[in-house]
Amino acid sequence: MRERRGPDRLSRREFAIGCGAVLGGVLTARRAAAQAAPISAGPAAPQLIEDLVAANRILADQGVVDGYGHVSTRHDRDPNRYLLSRSVAPELVVAADIMEYDLDSNPVRDPGRRQYSERYIHGEIYKLRPDVIAVIHAHTESVVPFTVSSVPLRAIAHSGGFLADGLPNFEIREVGGMTDMLVSNAKFGHALAEKLGDKAAILMRGHGFAATGKSLPYVVGRAIYIGVAAKLQAEAIALGGTVNYLDPEEGRKIEARRDYIRPWELWKREAMGK
Amino acid sequence: MRERRGPDRLSRREFAIGCGAVLGGVLTARRAAAQAAPISAGPAAPQLIEDLVAANRILADQGVVDGYGHVSTRHDRDPNRYLLSRSVAPELVVAADIMEYDLDSNPVRDPGRRQYSERYIHGEIYKLRPDVIAVIHAHTESVVPFTVSSVPLRAIAHSGGFLADGLPNFEIREVGGMTDMLVSNAKFGHALAEKLGDKAAILMRGHGFAATGKSLPYVVGRAIYIGVAAKLQAEAIALGGTVNYLDPEEGRKIEARRDYIRPWELWKREAMGK
Amino acid sequence: MRERRGPDRLSRREFAIGCGAVLGGVLTARRAAAQAAPISAGPAAPQLIEDLVAANRILADQGVVDGYGHVSTRHDRDPNRYLLSRSVAPELVVAADIMEYDLDSNPVRDPGRRQYSERYIHGEIYKLRPDVIAVIHAHTESVVPFTVSSVPLRAIAHSGGFLADGLPNFEIREVGGMTDMLVSNAKFGHALAEKLGDKAAILMRGHGFAATGKSLPYVVGRAIYIGVAAKLQAEAIALGGTVNYLDPEEGRKIEARRDYIRPWELWKREAMGK
Amino acid sequence: MRERRGPDRLSRREFAIGCGAVLGGVLTARRAAAQAAPISAGPAAPQLIEDLVAANRILADQGVVDGYGHVSTRHDRDPNRYLLSRSVAPELVVAADIMEYDLDSNPVRDPGRRQYSERYIHGEIYKLRPDVIAVIHAHTESVVPFTVSSVPLRAIAHSGGFLADGLPNFEIREVGGMTDMLVSNAKFGHALAEKLGDKAAILMRGHGFAATGKSLPYVVGRAIYIGVAAKLQAEAIALGGTVNYLDPEEGRKIEARRDYIRPWELWKREAMGK
Repeated sequence: MRERRGPDRLSRREFAIGCGAVLGGVLTARRAAAQAAPISAGPAAPQLIEDLVAANRILADQGVVDGYGHVSTRHDRDPNRYLLSRSVAPELVVAADIMEYDLDSNPVRDPGRRQYSERYIHGEIYKLRPDVIAVIHAHTESVVPFTVSSVPLRAIAHSGGFLADGLPNFEIREVGGMTDMLVSNAKFGHALAEKLGDKAAILMRGHGFAATGKSLPYVVGRAIYIGVAAKLQAEAIALGGTVNYLDPEEGRKIEARRDYIRPWELWKREAMGK
Repeated sequence: MRERRGPDRLSRREFAIGCGAVLGGVLTARRAAAQAAPISAGPAAPQLIEDLVAANRILADQGVVDGYGHVSTRHDRDPNRYLLSRSVAPELVVAADIMEYDLDSNPVRDPGRRQYSERYIHGEIYKLRPDVIAVIHAHTESVVPFTVSSVPLRAIAHSGGFLADGLPNFEIREVGGMTDMLVSNAKFGHALAEKLGDKAAILMRGHGFAATGKSLPYVVGRAIYIGVAAKLQAEAIALGGTVNYLDPEEGRKIEARRDYIRPWELWKREAMGK
Repeated sequence: MRERRGPDRLSRREFAIGCGAVLGGVLTARRAAAQAAPISAGPAAPQLIEDLVAANRILADQGVVDGYGHVSTRHDRDPNRYLLSRSVAPELVVAADIMEYDLDSNPVRDPGRRQYSERYIHGEIYKLRPDVIAVIHAHTESVVPFTVSSVPLRAIAHSGGFLADGLPNFEIREVGGMTDMLVSNAKFGHALAEKLGDKAAILMRGHGFAATGKSLPYVVGRAIYIGVAAKLQAEAIALGGTVNYLDPEEGRKIEARRDYIRPWELWKREAMGK
Repeated sequence: MRERRGPDRLSRREFAIGCGAVLGGVLTARRAAAQAAPISAGPAAPQLIEDLVAANRILADQGVVDGYGHVSTRHDRDPNRYLLSRSVAPELVVAADIMEYDLDSNPVRDPGRRQYSERYIHGEIYKLRPDVIAVIHAHTESVVPFTVSSVPLRAIAHSGGFLADGLPNFEIREVGGMTDMLVSNAKFGHALAEKLGDKAAILMRGHGFAATGKSLPYVVGRAIYIGVAAKLQAEAIALGGTVNYLDPEEGRKIEARRDYIRPWELWKREAMGK
């Protein structure tokens, strides 16, 4: 039962690594190493690491994540590698926590460090979506109710342009039946990435969401504003009248010129100035 | 399609400036300069600049704006000029960011700096409303739902006296059809100013609001209390009983003696003490 | 129209003081002084002043007041005098701001300082309620909706014991018709105090509330927990089921042993440590 | 009427201690001492005390408690003793405030210090639940409405796995009739512990909740996430559609691998860094 493997237990792979030395006569050391650890793409650009650390802190500072949730970015030297912190609360992430993974979500080194059990969300999305450069998984409080409600999340305002067309909702029961709800293996991650399709983000029933973007500022902006969109829609519904939603064409026109340059500067200053 | 011109693309005017040197034989340098940059009214009073910087910070500190939104004031030496920051998050605004504009929203200098694409909201309101000395555009979360709901925003309490008569709601579709929702040209700005009429503020469908005032403290107070009014009304509706709204005559009597001297001192201390 | 007299205009009384010197031949200087300024009860206990300053800061720190609202206490040397800050935001109050008033709400000195126009709430309650030692007037956001709703504020929980019997709601229209909503004269203050009766607090339609207590910690506790009670009841109603309210007898038993010693220590530390 | 005994009055037991010296001829000093104060299990592990202080601060920092509420842990040297602060707001607790109690909730020393009148919640749960190592009593605002509503608290999301089976709701009227709502004696504490049964937590009508855990990080995590669960469910209901709740089997699978290691590190840093 792979889905019950906790972040602090040894995976079969890690166990195999430990056994590799003993079984030296059966497998060559080289093959064992190849299985145990993919080859690194080399050091990532310092600015990318700095932005990834900032993205972690911003998500905490803006209330998108609490002790849980994570953000990754593709390696700037190799589209088949991505960068993600070891398992630690986003607010506490520093550069030394960043690990390099292949798209099967195997770390290139230090497999013994505690890792996010749901890193497969990132790897499997990067596999299916070459346009995606950054991914966030979070459980923002305003968004979770929409993952279990028959009322779909929609945009009422400009800032939610990227979800004016609606978002898919990942039901883990369809692929795993009764689980602990975690996307903690490649199978679940792949199913989620397939359900995401070409959308900007995907809801996860009883859990949270995953958002994508063409850069770290972009995905951080989406993760913040999906939470805002959920709050705005809930408030609009609570007024009891009819609600005039954003037209999908308006959403597309908004997204065509969207960047998050102005708020990113602010978010970074606020989060890193602490 | 002027409405899709982003803040970091060259406008036709800016393009023309760049071409001006080349086309020197066709247009005189003087005429090119006159088109490119209106004449300055001279330096504004230092206290006015200080208050405008404070207004930016207060709006961020009080949660009226996030990374977006802006506040302007008329120039104290010339009612045909107004002062507004270059494009930066309000919380980060300093005196050096303040730019001078004519009422067509052309900057008197530094046209190459990033500018708020929606500055036309300010310029066009100043044109039609000589009584207005300061303008704010924001997307306060409690207010946005009322811009898309069939339930109109009304005042239940004293602090919302200025909206007891009701506020107009600007529908950009009426003037621009399917757009990116931004009031990023003179045409949209003019239509908004006309819809505003003689009211204190105007809602903007799927977007936010614009508020006016006879001074910076006054418009900041209105921007803060329009958000409070929206929260109060939403909570009153959610109780499920009948709601006893403020009488418009009560609203007028409140406004006749309204100033924001006491809270302005507090807001400024809180925002600038950081 | 006394109710439209702003805090920064001269009242008839103040005007009379100004004229007193001129009309010296008509009124004796002594009689003019007696009218102009009641005799002081002498300096209040330093601890009482310190607690009154703390109460102001606590109310701001706990979100009971914003730039508006005020808290007073009876003078410890004379039950016919009370202590209240000059007109300033509660968060900014220091000892030097505290003024002494008679129960007609005339200051014993410095009548030219800006004063709270609604100080009559305090004076008129002290007149009718000898048991009351401290009074707060505030506009807490969670409470205001209940002042205009047909749904009465009631207690669902232990912390709201003092309002389990229900609170009266002051309708200023009954005594003043269409007004600017402010209790800015003795007539309105008296009507409010009469409506209060022997209750712990009174709602004020479209405005806020006034709370009473046998000490400053006590009235601060009530002002904080009336806001909590309003939030709790609103949330309970929003769940859509039936609500099991606190029994009035439970409320009385809770109040019989209520003190706010434990949280007062915390509130003071948090508010004064800033 | 034991339930009306306030925390600052002498209990009969304490009174007896005071009289013990006088009545020396009747009771032997030894017997009086045995009644007055149980024997200490000796000093607790410093790490446990540190974690208990941290737990207090975290609960305040995370908004689970305000000036009221408390957290205890079993003594590491003796399962028949537990550790709990003297009566003080959780945010202000330091190591010197921690007291040792027997399971009848008698302190082993310093019976004259102000004690939490509801400490019986802790002692009586420890008696009936040998698996429980830590207990929290709190009045989190989002949770209280569910204690008085016909709508039961349920989990919609992963983080509420421990309450997917539902929680009991303690009605103090069943055991005490009309009371001041406080679990301030052994009888009420025992009734609450019986109603708790083998559940993770119990609601308390018109009051709050008590949560249990196998360690301090665990019970703190539950106390935080019961509040989150209540918020999420209330928001989901307010959307007006049908709600897809977590399946109890999903809840059990989640709990089978639950720890709060990652957020505990964050919570502690945030709360103790102040």
